[in-house]
Amino acid sequence: MPPTEDARTYAPSRPRGPYAKSAVTRQRIIEAATAVFSVHGYLAGSTTEIAERAGLSGAQVFYYFPDKTAILQAVLANRDRIADEIAGPIPENAAEIPEAILRIARNNESAPGFIRLYSILVAEASSPEHPGKEYFRDRYRRLRMRFDSVFAAMEKQGLLAPGVDSTYAATSTLAIWDGLQLQWLLEPEAVNVASQLGRHLGLITRSA
Amino acid sequence: MPPTEDARTYAPSRPRGPYAKSAVTRQRIIEAATAVFSVHGYLAGSTTEIAERAGLSGAQVFYYFPDKTAILQAVLANRDRIADEIAGPIPENAAEIPEAILRIARNNESAPGFIRLYSILVAEASSPEHPGKEYFRDRYRRLRMRFDSVFAAMEKQGLLAPGVDSTYAATSTLAIWDGLQLQWLLEPEAVNVASQLGRHLGLITRSA
Repeated sequence: MPPTEDARTYAPSRPRGPYAKSAVTRQRIIEAATAVFSVHGYLAGSTTEIAERAGLSGAQVFYYFPDKTAILQAVLANRDRIADEIAGPIPENAAEIPEAILRIARNNESAPGFIRLYSILVAEASSPEHPGKEYFRDRYRRLRMRFDSVFAAMEKQGLLAPGVDSTYAATSTLAIWDGLQLQWLLEPEAVNVASQLGRHLGLITRSA
Repeated sequence: MPPTEDARTYAPSRPRGPYAKSAVTRQRIIEAATAVFSVHGYLAGSTTEIAERAGLSGAQVFYYFPDKTAILQAVLANRDRIADEIAGPIPENAAEIPEAILRIARNNESAPGFIRLYSILVAEASSPEHPGKEYFRDRYRRLRMRFDSVFAAMEKQGLLAPGVDSTYAATSTLAIWDGLQLQWLLEPEAVNVASQLGRHLGLITRSA
C-alpha cells in the first residue's frame, strides 16, 4: 500500500484542535504498546504498563481501543505503514524487486525491539489458544500472496533461477527472512540479515 | 551425539528400585513441562501446572530440578536426544547429508507442540531481560557450527552449488527451517516444511 493512501485514511483533512490531539494520543498509546510488547510479548504485556508509559489512565487507553487485541492490531498496522513507506511502491521494473526487499531488511536493523516483538507475537500466535491466531494466519497469507505476485512479475520476465517458481520464491524468502532475524536477535554480531537475505535472493533469481 | 552414549549417561547400569523410579519421575516432569510450555511458552508456563500435570507437588518437582530454567534445559536436552536418534550418526557419505536433515524435518511434523514451544522459546529468549538468552544464543552458535561442519564435508567434495560456502549453507538452512516451521504452525495446510526445505537444499547443493 503506497504511503500517501494511508496518510489520507488516517488524517483526511489535516485535523486541528481536539481531533488532532486525539490522533496524537492514539499514536502515543501505539508507541507505548510497541515498547511494552517488545519486551514482554503480547500475552505477558500488560495494558496497565502501556497506560503508565503513555502517561494515561487505563480507562483513557480503553477509550481509544476497545481491547488489547485492538492495540496489537494498531501496533502492527503502524509498523506496516512504516515498512511500506521505506519500501516505496512496487518497482515497475521487476529486476529492482530484490533491492526493494533488501531496503526493508536493512531498515529493520534499526528496530530490533520491533523485530523481537514481531517474532514473539508470531510464535505466541501459533498456539491454539491464542486470540491472535487467525489474525496472524491471515497476515502470513496476505504476505505470501503479495510476495508471490511480485515474484510472478519476475518469473514472467525470466528473472527467476531455473527450477524456482514464484510460490517457492515467496515462501522461502519470507521464511529465511524470519529465521535470519531470529538468529540476529540472539546474536547480532553473528548474522547480517540483509547480506544473507541478499545471497538467498541471488540464488533464486537471475539478472536480466 | 549417538543415542547409545546418551543412554549410558542417563542409566549407567540398568538401574532398578528407587533409582529407576526416580528416573521415571524425572522423565514424567519433563513430559509435563513440554506440554505446559508448548501451550503457554516458558515465561507464562507455571511450575504449579507442570507439577499438577505430572501428578506431583511443587516441592517434589523442585526436588528433581533446582529451578524452572533447569526444567527448560532438560526439556530441550530430551528433545535433542530424540532428534539425534532420528537423524542417526552424521552420514559418512557427504552426499547423504541433505537426506539426514530432511528426516528430522519430516519427523518434526508429528510434534507441532514441541515446534511451537521451541519457536516461542527462541523468540522470548531474544528479549534482553530473558534468563534463557545466553542459553539460546549458545545453542544457535553450536547449531550453526555443527551444520557448518557437515556442509564443509560437502563443500570439500564439490557438492555445494557455485557461490555457496559452508557458512552460508549452515546459516540459511537453519533460518529457512525456522521460518518455514513458523508458517506451518500458523497454517499447516499452506506450507510443507520438508518439501520446501528440500527445495532449498537442492538449490544450495549439487549432486555428485
